[in-house]
Amino acid sequence: MDIFEKRPIIKFTGNISVHKEDLVVNETPLTVFLNKKELGTIVCSPYAQKELVIGFLAGEGLIRKLSDIKNYFHREKQEVVWVETLDSSAEMENFLGRNFGSCCGKGRPSLYFKNDSDQIAPLTVNTHFSAIELQSLIKQLDEESKTFKLTGGVHSAALADNKQILVKYEDIGRHNALDRVLGYTVINEIETGDKAVLLSGRISSEMLIKAARIGTPLVVSRSAPTGLAIDLAEQLNITAVGFARGNSMNVYSHAERIVQ
Amino acid sequence: MDIFEKRPIIKFTGNISVHKEDLVVNETPLTVFLNKKELGTIVCSPYAQKELVIGFLAGEGLIRKLSDIKNYFHREKQEVVWVETLDSSAEMENFLGRNFGSCCGKGRPSLYFKNDSDQIAPLTVNTHFSAIELQSLIKQLDEESKTFKLTGGVHSAALADNKQILVKYEDIGRHNALDRVLGYTVINEIETGDKAVLLSGRISSEMLIKAARIGTPLVVSRSAPTGLAIDLAEQLNITAVGFARGNSMNVYSHAERIVQ
Repeated sequence: MDIFEKRPIIKFTGNISVHKEDLVVNETPLTVFLNKKELGTIVCSPYAQKELVIGFLAGEGLIRKLSDIKNYFHREKQEVVWVETLDSSAEMENFLGRNFGSCCGKGRPSLYFKNDSDQIAPLTVNTHFSAIELQSLIKQLDEESKTFKLTGGVHSAALADNKQILVKYEDIGRHNALDRVLGYTVINEIETGDKAVLLSGRISSEMLIKAARIGTPLVVSRSAPTGLAIDLAEQLNITAVGFARGNSMNVYSHAERIVQ
Repeated sequence: MDIFEKRPIIKFTGNISVHKEDLVVNETPLTVFLNKKELGTIVCSPYAQKELVIGFLAGEGLIRKLSDIKNYFHREKQEVVWVETLDSSAEMENFLGRNFGSCCGKGRPSLYFKNDSDQIAPLTVNTHFSAIELQSLIKQLDEESKTFKLTGGVHSAALADNKQILVKYEDIGRHNALDRVLGYTVINEIETGDKAVLLSGRISSEMLIKAARIGTPLVVSRSAPTGLAIDLAEQLNITAVGFARGNSMNVYSHAERIVQ
């Protein structure tokens, strides 16, 4: 399955209609089994599934590094992934024993949520970016968002150093796009303490926690943050930047990382 | 807690920074217990919680009408809702026994997903809207999206007849906004077969299924649909309209409901 494909549409302008074709993003379910238990199904863009699954596990705190994974098997025909980890911890049992809401902003039981932020130590890295560097990186994110330009149906997430974007993913879900970035850093053992996460979509509490899990000290988005995400950024020593567009941006927490 | 509040920010334009205040949307967790089991936590904008919870249950097929609910209790201080239903069916047990992915596009185990679309009978209503009516309704949605204009941090969902928007909600999550519309129709026993759902956000498969659950024959969005959502719309006899902006819109399925 391709990331997007042509579909027939009827385009109306006022009352006038014409038959045309347009590019539409594809969406596919991928069911993940962790240590023989069904973890859930990720509905996602059909590519880079390994980065997605490993990033999802890292973002939920279920693995920390690639060597935590004993076996990984993707049965592509059935869109099922089996993962076995070395250590099936109590934390994982707890995760598997709970139910989850089903979507955007419906993430996590609040106790779990509280556990999440308590589990994560505030970042201690002393990284700096200039405002001009961040504005240039967001501009690069915009320019490279090819699927969005073609379909309008995806979000982007990227990892960048002071100079350039190192890796970038697009997906129908903003959480999936960021999970793939997480997966990439875990698979390739990338140092993240001196880098920034770039997002096209909003910084909700869940997005902030994912970035914190891999130790990235800056989260920069074209869109708005939520109040809870700002509180968590404050607490976890993360620099949260929103509405980064053109040469403008708003800094909501730990502005000391942004130097002139 | 208010829907949004003022927060201190540092606004950069190029290299120049000024201290200001900006409006930021709030995000709060709401944990739902159904028939004494923890269903999950919805992270949401802090208002219209009853519409949200009842709409969530309706969108997942766990209730159909208000009288299916025996007890509803919201302990506001702890942000916990208890719901008891008259019939704790096998379907519900099945729902509660599964795990769910945690976010946007991470919805539902694929079997459940297949069950969902199989459970729902294709719509048989013979409603018509003109292209001009739909364009006018989306214009109304834009004009009434107050919180978005102030904060940039929310999505809108509304229910409309041929003439006007009947009810509209905004939320940090597009699924939550639509769930509230569902809840409103259940609580107020609104006939939906002659109405349209209007959305600011993308039409993913999950959004399409929610609209189908309450029997709304048209789903109209400012944004893109996914391929899977179009397939489901085709199968469930729903008219899916995307990129409805100004006097332009794309029809992806069942265009016969749109008359000149």
